[in-house]
Parts: sequence; structure tokens; C-alpha cells
Amino acid sequence: MYIDVSNLPRQCQLENGKTMKKTIVLSHPKLAESAVQSFLLEGLNWLDAGVNIIKLDQKLLRSTLSLAEQRELILNSAEVFLQFPLYWYSAPASLAQWQEELFTDKFVHDLQEKNKVQPATLAAVISMADKSADFGAGARIGRTISELLSPFQAFAEKVGFSYRKPFIIEQFNYQTPKQQERTLIEYLMYIADADASFEQRSEWLLAQLTKIEQTANSAILRDYLQQQLDEYRLLDATLGEIKNDRE
Amino acid sequence: MYIDVSNLPRQCQLENGKTMKKTIVLSHPKLAESAVQSFLLEGLNWLDAGVNIIKLDQKLLRSTLSLAEQRELILNSAEVFLQFPLYWYSAPASLAQWQEELFTDKFVHDLQEKNKVQPATLAAVISMADKSADFGAGARIGRTISELLSPFQAFAEKVGFSYRKPFIIEQFNYQTPKQQERTLIEYLMYIADADASFEQRSEWLLAQLTKIEQTANSAILRDYLQQQLDEYRLLDATLGEIKNDRE
Repeated sequence: MYIDVSNLPRQCQLENGKTMKKTIVLSHPKLAESAVQSFLLEGLNWLDAGVNIIKLDQKLLRSTLSLAEQRELILNSAEVFLQFPLYWYSAPASLAQWQEELFTDKFVHDLQEKNKVQPATLAAVISMADKSADFGAGARIGRTISELLSPFQAFAEKVGFSYRKPFIIEQFNYQTPKQQERTLIEYLMYIADADASFEQRSEWLLAQLTKIEQTANSAILRDYLQQQLDEYRLLDATLGEIKNDRE
Repeated sequence: MYIDVSNLPRQCQLENGKTMKKTIVLSHPKLAESAVQSFLLEGLNWLDAGVNIIKLDQKLLRSTLSLAEQRELILNSAEVFLQFPLYWYSAPASLAQWQEELFTDKFVHDLQEKNKVQPATLAAVISMADKSADFGAGARIGRTISELLSPFQAFAEKVGFSYRKPFIIEQFNYQTPKQQERTLIEYLMYIADADASFEQRSEWLLAQLTKIEQTANSAILRDYLQQQLDEYRLLDATLGEIKNDRE
């Protein structure tokens, strides 16, 4: 099952019609044990946009890709996602280790030059045990998420990436299965589409839903998507009736 | 040569007269190659306050102390300093790794309980290649140092430490030898004394200078300290004359 992202409002299309890569750098000390990361990874299979994933785990093992291959990937990515659980209000050690090893002076220079011609985007995808409402002056955690993630914003700007508003997954393990499925849809939309309006996103989701309705063989999302589709159609029909009444 | 810190305005004195420990957690990927860290470490020998140092280097090697011993040290420290070069606007990977390994749920709980009775302080000591003036909205690096270090503030508050204003060493390698010596003195005063006024610091420095004048056998600081002492005495004499003229 694939979700077609070719018709998204803003795709990074090169002049020759090729779509530039998306790369997710996934840092988690115990990836196999993480319910949320496993769930997101499974969902990524449904995107046919060719998302590359660099996995960094607890032993700070490098990806199966060499540093040179990873640099090549980053240079050829229109969007880079740093995806990690919030550990001590920042990223796990493996992400810092990755930054230290990959981003040599030479590579930073190459990336800056490339970004002057083809600016790419950097985004953080954060999962956390705390609630968003618990952050900020006067809250239990006295600084905002924006402040806590500011080292990644400064990093992005230093290497010439534009910095995208982060995607935050809060308290995944306390979410109901339905909420988790909604989280996954929103995550996939975030990965697929950098800059769509609400209407565009709804249209896109509807197109996906129609397509999946015929081809879905995974039980994880089908029920949720079907229900969303029914609700959407009901809403659409209702809006149609209202419109007819007025005319 | 020792700098006596026993008469500092605010020392963490226990009821039984014992002074609580200070612990520096030093994270640097290539400690032996760092001019600034070697310089600071040498200077610490002059403090007789019993500063403990946990060194974390590029291979994420633990300190020679076991995790249990490190936890004991942190529990018995009135002040904990996280000392590191700013790497990608945050700490090197080894510090994050240390936080992940040392601060288990149980240890965090123990530390929180201990800090309710005997609150300790956490402070960051940062060295960086950028200038302080380059940080903040509209500057080359668009966020403040306070924002970039906010994960450590949130960490401190979570475990019940009070968070002290960080000590920033900027562009050490571009400093003249005289500036470097001044940096060292200010660093030692920062480590020795959490809460002194300018006058108290000056008095303390003068006392150190007088003592060192007789005992110093290290060439690194003697000239600088002697010159400071001469300048201080000249200033003191001048102030005395001004005072006499007015009376």
C-alpha cells in the first residue's frame, strides 16, 4: 500500500522533474523497544516518496551507510528530519555524536554552498512523555519547546537549512489506538508535505483515503481511514444540502 | 600553591563544619588536545577546596569512577558544574550519554529528595569559538545562549538543583596570554564562590594575591597576579589620598 505524494501542493521538484529526497535521521537508544518509533516506521512504508532513514541507536552505531554515503544523502535531500524522543529536554547522545562526526568543516562548507543554490529544510520530529501544556514560563518545565530545541534551529541556520516548525508527539503511550492512528496520519502528512493549507491537506487526505479504501491490506489504519472517509462524505453531503437550500 | 577558599562569603558549610563537595563534569571529545580545558584543569590544582572532576572524553569512556561512585559524588556535592565546549550549540555527545546513563528514575528520585533537604546548584561552564555578541535575535546566531542552554536549566530544575548563571569563555584561542590568565582567575573565582559581590570578590582576590606572593612557585600566574596586586595597591593608595583630601 502506498500513499501517493506526487500531487502534493509543495513538492521539491527539480527542473528535470525529479523529486528531491527526504531523509529522516532517527535517534533512539533502544529503537526496537520504542512503541511510537516502531509505529511511525511502519507507517513510513506507506509513503512512496522514497524516504531515506538513517538509524542511530543506543550503541551510537553508525547507520549501515558510511559517513560519505550519509553526506551524499544529506546533500541530495530537500528535507531532513531529526526524529528522536526528548531525553533530558534534548536529543539522545547518538544524535549529538552524529552531528560531531558527520558535520566536519569541509562538509559544512559543501552543504552551505549547496543550500545557497538549492535551499533545503530541517525539521525536528519529537516524541515526549510530557504534555506540551507543561512547557513555558510558569509551567512545570519553565522553558518553551522552541527554546529547548533552539540548538537545532541554530544548527539548521548555520548549515544553510531553513528551519521548519517541529512536529511534536506527546504522551504516545497514553493515547488510545484511535488517537495513535490520528497521530500517524498527521505525522505522514507532516513528512509528505512541507507547506500545505488546511484545505489542501484535507483534499490530499481524502484522495489518499479513497485510494487506500480499495487497496488497503493493513489492518492498522483501514478502520480509522474508513471512518474518516465516511465522516468526510457525510460532512460533504451535509454541506451540499446546505448549499442547495440557500440557492 | 593553593588558593584558600575557606573564607569565601558563601561556602556550603554543613552544620558539622564540613564543606560540601564541588564536582565538575568535564565533557570534551579530545580533552588532551584542548588548550583551554588543559589550562583550566591546571588552574584547578590551585584551589584547595577539593574539587572532584568527572572526565568524559571522545570515546564516551566513563570516568574512572563507577556509576555508583559518581552518583554518590553528585548526591554529596553542593555545586555541580557541567563544563564543555559548545558543539553545535549544545554539549558534546558524551555529556548527553552521561545524563542518560547516570540519571535513572531511581537516582533522579534520590537526588530530588536530597535536594529538598540540602539544595545544590548546577552551573554550566562553556567554552566557545563564537563571541557572546553574536548570539540573540537578529545576530548571526539567532538565539540567546540562555535559550541554547535551556535544556540544562530544565534538567537542573527537574532534579531539584537551582540553576546558576553560566560561565562563558569565548574565543580562548584568540586571547592574549594576559587575557587567558584573567580568564583563569575569573574561572577560579566562579568555581570557588557562588554568590559574592564585587567587593567581596575583590577582597578575596587580594587575599589570594598576598598569599600567593609569598608562596607561588608557578610561573603561569605569578606575573599576572603580581601586576594585579600592584595595580590594586596603587588604586587603594589613590583612593586613600582622595579620601584624605576630602576630609
